[in-house]
Order: sequence, then C-alpha cells, then structure tokens
Amino acid sequence: MRDLMLQDPTRRKALFTGGGLAALAAVPEVALADGVGNDPPAKMTSSGKALPEYAGWKNADAMIVHSANTIELKRSHFGHGLLTPTDCLFVRNNLNPPSADIVKDREAWAVEVTGVAKPARLTLADLKRMGLTSVTMVLQCSGNGRGYFPHKPSGTQWKEGAAGCVVFTGVAVKDVVKALGGLADGAQYMTGTGGETIPDGVDPKTVMVERSVPLSDIEDALLAWELNGEPLPLAHGGPVRMIVPGYTGVNNVKYVRQLAFTAQQSPAKIQQSSYRFTPVGVKGSPDAPSLWKVPVNSWITTPADQSVKAGRVQLAGVAFGGFYPIKGIEVSVDGGQTWTAAKWFGPDLGRYAWRNFVLEVDLKPGTYRVASRAVNDQGEAQPKERQENERGYNNNSWLDRSIELVVA
Amino acid sequence: MRDLMLQDPTRRKALFTGGGLAALAAVPEVALADGVGNDPPAKMTSSGKALPEYAGWKNADAMIVHSANTIELKRSHFGHGLLTPTDCLFVRNNLNPPSADIVKDREAWAVEVTGVAKPARLTLADLKRMGLTSVTMVLQCSGNGRGYFPHKPSGTQWKEGAAGCVVFTGVAVKDVVKALGGLADGAQYMTGTGGETIPDGVDPKTVMVERSVPLSDIEDALLAWELNGEPLPLAHGGPVRMIVPGYTGVNNVKYVRQLAFTAQQSPAKIQQSSYRFTPVGVKGSPDAPSLWKVPVNSWITTPADQSVKAGRVQLAGVAFGGFYPIKGIEVSVDGGQTWTAAKWFGPDLGRYAWRNFVLEVDLKPGTYRVASRAVNDQGEAQPKERQENERGYNNNSWLDRSIELVVA
Repeated sequence: MRDLMLQDPTRRKALFTGGGLAALAAVPEVALADGVGNDPPAKMTSSGKALPEYAGWKNADAMIVHSANTIELKRSHFGHGLLTPTDCLFVRNNLNPPSADIVKDREAWAVEVTGVAKPARLTLADLKRMGLTSVTMVLQCSGNGRGYFPHKPSGTQWKEGAAGCVVFTGVAVKDVVKALGGLADGAQYMTGTGGETIPDGVDPKTVMVERSVPLSDIEDALLAWELNGEPLPLAHGGPVRMIVPGYTGVNNVKYVRQLAFTAQQSPAKIQQSSYRFTPVGVKGSPDAPSLWKVPVNSWITTPADQSVKAGRVQLAGVAFGGFYPIKGIEVSVDGGQTWTAAKWFGPDLGRYAWRNFVLEVDLKPGTYRVASRAVNDQGEAQPKERQENERGYNNNSWLDRSIELVVA
Repeated sequence: MRDLMLQDPTRRKALFTGGGLAALAAVPEVALADGVGNDPPAKMTSSGKALPEYAGWKNADAMIVHSANTIELKRSHFGHGLLTPTDCLFVRNNLNPPSADIVKDREAWAVEVTGVAKPARLTLADLKRMGLTSVTMVLQCSGNGRGYFPHKPSGTQWKEGAAGCVVFTGVAVKDVVKALGGLADGAQYMTGTGGETIPDGVDPKTVMVERSVPLSDIEDALLAWELNGEPLPLAHGGPVRMIVPGYTGVNNVKYVRQLAFTAQQSPAKIQQSSYRFTPVGVKGSPDAPSLWKVPVNSWITTPADQSVKAGRVQLAGVAFGGFYPIKGIEVSVDGGQTWTAAKWFGPDLGRYAWRNFVLEVDLKPGTYRVASRAVNDQGEAQPKERQENERGYNNNSWLDRSIELVVA
C-alpha cells in the first residue's frame, strides 16, 4: 500500500509543492517541521492559506498568502542580509503564470525583438552570448502599502511586504539593441509583452500584460535569466524577464516574449487605464500619470511584532531612493516630533538597491511610536501622509509605516 | 491506509528532509521534480549520495556530497548573483553537528565571554541588544582546491566549490568587548569554542573545535546569528557563529559557546597541529604557519562543463583578494601565454567579498585552455603552480583551476 500510495502523482505533487488547502488538511503532521529552521518549511502559512503550487518552494513561515497570485513577505522576516532570499520574495501576477513547461527547456525560450534596424527572434541561448551583467534593485509592487489607505482601494491590501532587494543577471537591453543595428526611427518606448496564455473569447487588450516605459529610463534595463544567482523561477518571470531598474513591479514584464521599441505606448488596458495615478473616485485614463518610477521609501523591520526589554535597543530597517540613489535616513521614537540620523551598515549595492540602517537607542519602559524617514539624492523625502489616490498606489507615508513599540 | 502511512514519522521525515539512500530508493518518482526549477529539489544529488538530514534543504542539483560532513557546490552552479544562496553554500564540519534542538530556542543560546574586564554569559537575546552590523565575505574551506594536489593529501578532494560569498549579520566583537569593559591584560588571541558534543572516553583536546586567531585581525569580526538575511541554519553554525572575515572556514567557529581572549593559542589539536602549512611528508606542529588568512584567488564559472558555439562567448567567474581587497583580474584563453583584463560587473561588496567578472571574446572552433588570474591590493597574485604542502591547503594556482573549453 505504501508503494501504491507513492505512485499517486497527485498526492506526490501535493506533498512536494504545497498542493492546496484540501491536500494539506489531510496532512496535519507536516506542520511539525516548523520552527526547527533546518527542515524544509511546511507549506501552510500562518495566514492559514497554502502557497500555490508554482510558488510552493517559498518560505511558508515568512509569507502571507493573499491569493494564488499575491504573496507578501512579513515585516518580521526582512532580515538584514542586503538581499532578499528568493524564497522570501513577494509574488504578484496580473494573470495566472504560464505552464511550468516553459522552464523545462530554458535555452529555447525566444524573445521577438522589433523596432530595431534588424528585427530578430532571439532564444535565451542567443541572449547569453550577447552580454552578461547584473543589477541589484528593489523590486516593489506599485500597490505596496495599499493596505493603509482608508478608502480601501480595490486590489491586494499589501502592507510593507510587496518589496524585496534582489540581483537580476542577464544582458543589457542596450547591448541587444546595438547588436541588432540600433533603434528604428521614431521609437519612444520600450514595450514588453508577457508570455501568459490569454483566455479564449476575451479581447486580448483587456487582459494581456504588455507595458511600455520611456526610453529615457532604460540605460540599466536588462533581459534577465537569473535571480539571486539561480535560474529565474517561473514565479518571478522565468525563463526571461524584462527588467527596468527603479520602475515598479508591473513594468518588469515576466516571461517576456516580445520586446518592441515603439512610437506609442501599448494599447493594452494595463498600460492605458490601469496603473494610473488618479484622485480618489476617478478612474484611470491615458492622460493620468503612469505608474513608472518607484518613490523614495523606508520602514522599520526590527523589532517587528514584539515587545522589547528596557535598555539598549537596536532599531533597524531598509531604505531606498526609488529610481534615484538613497541619500539619508532618520528615525523617530516619538511619532515624528524629533528625528535622529541612523547609521547605514553593509555595503552600498548601487542606486536601485536598498540599504540596511540601524539606530541604537536606550529606552525606558513605555510605549513608543517608531518611524523612519528617507530622502533620496533629488531631495525627495518620504511625506508624513500618504498621497491619496483611487487605486492606492505608491504609498510612501512614514506615518503609515510607523510601528508601536512596547518597552517593558 | 493513506492516513496510516502519513502518520509514519520516519517516512514523513524521509520525504521532507532527504532521509537516506534507502528511503529515496523507494521513491523514484521524487526525481521527476528535477529540472523544473520551481519545485523543491529532489534530495538525491547527481553524485549519487543523498544530502544528510541536517542539510536536507540544500539544492541537490547544485551540490556534490562527499560525505555527511563535506558538501561542495558544483562549478556549474556558482551563478552571477553576487551572493551564494544559502542552499548552495558548501558545508564542512570537523565534528558531527549538535542536535537540531539547539536551534529550537535560538534566543536562549549562550556564549561565555572570558578574558575581558567583566566576563559574562551572554544569550543571543543579550547579543542582539548590544549591536547590529553585517559583513559580506568569502567563506572558504582551507582545503578548497585540495583535489588538484598530485600526492592526494588526506581530506576531502574539493575542487572549487568549498567556497561561497555570503552576508553574516550579528554584533561586532569589538562592541561586545567594549560593553564588557575591554580586554584583560595580556590577551593576544581570540579563541572560540564550538558547541559540538565531545564523544565519551575521548580526550577533548584531540577532537574539540577550538580555534585561536590573532587580535590584530579581528577588527571586523562578528558574533553572527543571520546568514543571508535568515536565521543562521544549524548546518552553518547557528544559533551563533564566530565570524572572522578574511580567515579560512575553520576559524569561523560554529555554534560558538565560548569566546575567550587569551594569551596563548588553544591547546586543542585542531589549533596546535592540524591546519598547519608544512612541506609534503611533514606533519603539522605549532611552529608551522597556521591556516588563517584566505589567499587571493579566482576561477572561471561560465561556461562550465559544456562546449560552446563558435562566435561571441562570455567568459565569467569570481575573484577575491582573500584577507585583502581584490584589485585586478585577467583572463587567458591560451593557457596563460597571453592575458586580457576582464571587466567587473555588479557592485563591490567590500574587501572580504568576491566580485563577478566577465570577458567577452570571439572564438573560432577549436579547443582552448581558459584561466583567470587575480591580484589583490597587496600585489599578491595567483601563482601558476600550487604551493605543494602536506595537507593540500590554500591552493590558488591558476593553472589547476583552468578549464578546457571546446568551441564547435
């Protein structure tokens, strides 16, 4: 019977990849693996939702599953390691990911490049011969912090955890363009098209993931095939993803199958009316600002979700300048009445990355409102209040992200 | 029957942690998870040995299991991500690791600190209040490259993969010393004692892991509790490890239970006669140089274990200066007759880290001997030939690590 059971492919899949709620409900013992720190994590998260199969390898202890396509990192699990481990990186898909078949023969994945002098269909094997570089960057969903907006915008109610700092490795887009003879006349945008399957009977424009970004900001853009030194997982857009450092998550098109240099922005709904910054009550439209650049931001990560002992306390967090380099970071323990410069630690990973900061303080018993406030080299500082907008984008309010710290 | 089987704790463990050869032989389907890149890896490595239970979460595709206490990263899996993912970091234990019970309540782990004005027993919770910083460093076994020595020194026959570049986070040793009133008179060494269980009936000195390092080199030393942003796994010395950046692996004492500032080096065999650099045929002794500083080194990682198509080829690898900052890197495709400066890519993570390099070349069909040669800021360059020594330590020969590249 044991062998027979092990030959049940459905069951095997459930055990190894998280399966679904039903599968895990039948395996309560799996949760025993928790807390040891050396066994593979149980796949049921503390939020009570199972990781979806394509992301079943995520660290279940660290993640909050909002839905099968929206998975957040807990504030308590950011750590202080410069980079976000891949199994702790948030997931946000606009459509269901393609079949895992596309990462079985990675080298065969092809990207059609148009809007250049010599249009070409380039396989990943071709791309790997054309150049090799990497970029370290904050990858952040446009809606990170949406959970703080009082009008409850539609979409995932992210707090801090739809963000991570990671290394993408691939070929520079500028090297691909150069190899293909340069841009065609009139190109103004780089437009990437995702490889998701469009459901039958739907106008593709209404659902397809196709994003355009201005050519002025693609100096450091990549076609990437590695994430944190390993082949890019399907959950993060493998085999090949369009990477635009300093731009919000949606602009970094997953499983990219076409890279077009175009005179106009994509006609897809996701470009024309979604991901637009509009006043509350006003729908997105082409004349509203597009969600492109990541804004300056920071938050305290340590301590998180805990009271601390009176005396010496280390207050730590992450800060990033968005599209521009981070410049300064301050911390307040009195809800923003006074601020003290915090100290960076660890190396500077470049303009698009975040940095770890720490402020050492001596605290008496009491309750404190702890906040951090970053400024980038353009002089853009985190505001106290969020900028209200219909869809709850780009929240970088320091007050929203402040924490109550109980010192006993 | 299914439920009954799932309540068998032995079987459950085998499925989730790698178990052993016997367990996996009964589950051939597990291997199907390979190659997809998104499922948890099968625990059987391609070398035909299963990962040991305490390291069952390692990436089986990437690792070579020499023994339960020696696990190497394949040259083909170094990637280009600045840091080595924790599941790809080599393992080398001098004794079996302690029970996983020690990482169940991490905050309670205690380190006895002696040789200071105010000796103290500090729990991890205490240490976390005393400071917070991180260091990015190459962690490399003293015997990395031993597999190239022709006299077959005893010990693991490592090639390149007993090395990784990682971030350790913890409190600076100098801050701990300061908090405890400074060093006692006469201190010359920092001596760390590991938390392994000493077998009954054995003289502890003959097997205990206790290493001493000179105080002149501990400016950046840590007591670390995080590796790459996550709680330090047992396999890498959690809950707390003594970290001496720029020093070979053995000096970074795992599960450290005592930190002593001493006038003399430890009397343990591992300090007095093991890990000493001696001519071939001569046993280690206290008057021979101790294995302390990591030497300058580099190797090609891409391409690895494959032939490539004629035309444009990207030759990439890692280079590090050891205890001193890396300064230069050159690549040869003709076995060292001519050298060309390669290009760094990705940020500089500090003096103890490695850097990724790449050289773009156009190659006609043929067979090439590809090598890399690094130099640090002290002018120390990798030699062509290894320095022969009894135990096969500190191999940084560029010839040994060169690869044959077939271009078709």
